[in-house]
Amino acid sequence: MQINPIHLKELAALINAKFIGNEHHLITGLNEIHRVNTGDVVFVDHPKYYNKALNSAASTIIINKEVECPLGKALIIHPEPFTAFNILCEHFLPKNYSLIETSNTAFIGHNLIKMPGCYIGNNVSIGNNVTLHPNVVIYDNCVIGNNVIIHANTTIGSDAFYFKRREKNYEALYTCGEVVIEDDVIIGANCTIDSGVTSTTKIGRASVLDNHIHIGHDVEVGEQCLMAAGVAIAGVCKIGNKVTLWGQVGISSSVIIGDGATVLAKSGVNENIKAGETYFGAPAGPAKEKMREIFAVKQLPNLISKLYTE
Amino acid sequence: MQINPIHLKELAALINAKFIGNEHHLITGLNEIHRVNTGDVVFVDHPKYYNKALNSAASTIIINKEVECPLGKALIIHPEPFTAFNILCEHFLPKNYSLIETSNTAFIGHNLIKMPGCYIGNNVSIGNNVTLHPNVVIYDNCVIGNNVIIHANTTIGSDAFYFKRREKNYEALYTCGEVVIEDDVIIGANCTIDSGVTSTTKIGRASVLDNHIHIGHDVEVGEQCLMAAGVAIAGVCKIGNKVTLWGQVGISSSVIIGDGATVLAKSGVNENIKAGETYFGAPAGPAKEKMREIFAVKQLPNLISKLYTE
Amino acid sequence: MQINPIHLKELAALINAKFIGNEHHLITGLNEIHRVNTGDVVFVDHPKYYNKALNSAASTIIINKEVECPLGKALIIHPEPFTAFNILCEHFLPKNYSLIETSNTAFIGHNLIKMPGCYIGNNVSIGNNVTLHPNVVIYDNCVIGNNVIIHANTTIGSDAFYFKRREKNYEALYTCGEVVIEDDVIIGANCTIDSGVTSTTKIGRASVLDNHIHIGHDVEVGEQCLMAAGVAIAGVCKIGNKVTLWGQVGISSSVIIGDGATVLAKSGVNENIKAGETYFGAPAGPAKEKMREIFAVKQLPNLISKLYTE
Repeated sequence: MQINPIHLKELAALINAKFIGNEHHLITGLNEIHRVNTGDVVFVDHPKYYNKALNSAASTIIINKEVECPLGKALIIHPEPFTAFNILCEHFLPKNYSLIETSNTAFIGHNLIKMPGCYIGNNVSIGNNVTLHPNVVIYDNCVIGNNVIIHANTTIGSDAFYFKRREKNYEALYTCGEVVIEDDVIIGANCTIDSGVTSTTKIGRASVLDNHIHIGHDVEVGEQCLMAAGVAIAGVCKIGNKVTLWGQVGISSSVIIGDGATVLAKSGVNENIKAGETYFGAPAGPAKEKMREIFAVKQLPNLISKLYTE
Repeated sequence: MQINPIHLKELAALINAKFIGNEHHLITGLNEIHRVNTGDVVFVDHPKYYNKALNSAASTIIINKEVECPLGKALIIHPEPFTAFNILCEHFLPKNYSLIETSNTAFIGHNLIKMPGCYIGNNVSIGNNVTLHPNVVIYDNCVIGNNVIIHANTTIGSDAFYFKRREKNYEALYTCGEVVIEDDVIIGANCTIDSGVTSTTKIGRASVLDNHIHIGHDVEVGEQCLMAAGVAIAGVCKIGNKVTLWGQVGISSSVIIGDGATVLAKSGVNENIKAGETYFGAPAGPAKEKMREIFAVKQLPNLISKLYTE
Repeated sequence: MQINPIHLKELAALINAKFIGNEHHLITGLNEIHRVNTGDVVFVDHPKYYNKALNSAASTIIINKEVECPLGKALIIHPEPFTAFNILCEHFLPKNYSLIETSNTAFIGHNLIKMPGCYIGNNVSIGNNVTLHPNVVIYDNCVIGNNVIIHANTTIGSDAFYFKRREKNYEALYTCGEVVIEDDVIIGANCTIDSGVTSTTKIGRASVLDNHIHIGHDVEVGEQCLMAAGVAIAGVCKIGNKVTLWGQVGISSSVIIGDGATVLAKSGVNENIKAGETYFGAPAGPAKEKMREIFAVKQLPNLISKLYTE
């Protein structure tokens, strides 16, 4: 998320933190690590990820240890970077939910069919020739392209499911991102597409989603993908173009699936899939291997009987 | 779907297509292949299915090749039968969504309890003593029997998930069917039951559905079935009477399940199941066989250790 | 559920039933077997469960056979205890749905953010600083704590999925319980949490639920649990504190999961899990064993080839 540019010194003061770097160093955005750009603040609180954060595109790093500051960057030292980042996001991007059905700040194109019970939040942008069936909910800041159809009781832009475990509770990472639905997308009934944390969850042009589909925060779905009912994709996955996910498939967070890949029904994917491959199983592997395994397992009871009677 | 009867010549003219047959040959309906009756137009665009379409009950076949016309039938030759069929459906059965909570053309029986936020579309028919919990959505043309209870945020009659892959997008088969919910059915919260494409998705008398259940287009569920939470049934399946599907079961399209069969939780069914059988697994098989396999697999690590140390 | 105290003789008369015990024996509540207290009526209709019911905390047992009456208790003899119990529940706790968005009998704390399309039923209690995103539905009698966030299109308090199979239909056990959501809980979009039958379904303090989660009737979820998208928990389960359930996990009814346990994605749990253990698979077992089995199965096709060619 872009913010009005602010100097390092002023930003650090907002969270009462010490900083390392030029006090006039400029901050122009807030993003979490998967989506950082030059000018952004990012946070890191585990030594395992220090290098990733320090070497990312981010210009300023909130960190819980005084380390060497990379050239041209700045550090903000804070005992709880996660919380510090949340405070900054809430400061610069405060929530102010609209309590009316269609916010006055929504931008709506031509020929919207908006059926009863739909909610359109602040700063939502809707293209031309869009159909929203009854009770569709679109949270603040989401962007819906042209010719999009969304079926009843679907939720677009709910908060990211991204937490830090504390002793007494889970602290949620403050969601201030958006969902972008590109042109010609069709979304079924009772689906949920979570907002990006500070950035974008994207459904690419002409993709079609059946009912009861869950898309986690910051997922990027390519163009012309097809997902059957009950698919659940965890946060930060990257799904290529023309990918097919059959019914009830689940995909773990941060998995990358190549163009034209297919995942067969009920599979659980926890590793990347190359373009054009077909996967099956839970945990999923190449479908041909899995089919061989299934065939082998069918023979196993008799094999064991035989081995133990020989 | 029935349409006002029309002669072959006039119908073919609507899609600028050549026809084979008597120009006064009468067309009385439009249906896709799984649901055709005498008098219907059907479409077929793949040689693999030519015979099925030509020998079906349909009286008129839209086809992308000049083949021999069966006796007493007619052919319409069109390079894109799928698109041609869509054009005809839209022509004869145009959508005209109601933008008010309860359509003026809905027929509602006695003692309806309609809680806030429910949507009742055009030509919906609702029997006596029905309870619609808040935010239930019923699309156009659906038929709800007597004594039916539908829990909150459930969607009845959303579009079929039926597409043809084109180079640049997915072309949707135009949905103009309906859902029929028979008497004494109970449907849980946040369920989705898709409309038949040109025909009917049916939930049989006294069946009970838990929450988060998905029923695809043109599925026929028999009487007194029980489905636990998270079941997803793909399009065109036929589920017998007194079938039990436990939690999170998935069923592939066009599967037939016999009366009194049981599918255990989390199974994925991709083959027909005979009456009275119990299935388990993904892919599912007879539960006894699967339990033997599971027992055998438990022994496998030690068996392998033993074989490799002998 | 507590009721106004009533004497045995009067209660039995409501269902035209014979009783065994002091006619002035007092009844102060109605509960099903998993949740009975002193003073309650419970029902039992299968010899297999007679002893459990007779020896439970319940003071009065509706039973379909004349058995010996435990000391200090009373029996009500009825050919259909399930139906008799339903009649009593409907008599003492009749449903009277509110047909307005926020019932006049709801108790609402400070700083409620209630977005459009939400429904708040009779006798609902809502704490301070609660956020209800659009189209959240809260059925009668539910209790929402402080600082709770519920995302769009979620349903709280739908009827228990608890039926008795009859020759011609399923008879539903009458739902007259509640859901209690404790402080600091976050619930995602399009979730469903069923009511207790006569008692409470509970989500413990500071637990966080992702989207599309189903919690069955009378489930007790502890504090600081985390559930990823698509989890489904069947009725009467007991989930400890700090339990983690990853995506699309399913749990069979009445399972008990100990504090700090973890269930990996897509697992189906049908047995109790001890505190601190990690489970995987469907049916689930200790994750380490399952991983060994998966590794062994990968080797199996080659092992079989080798065995058959030796």
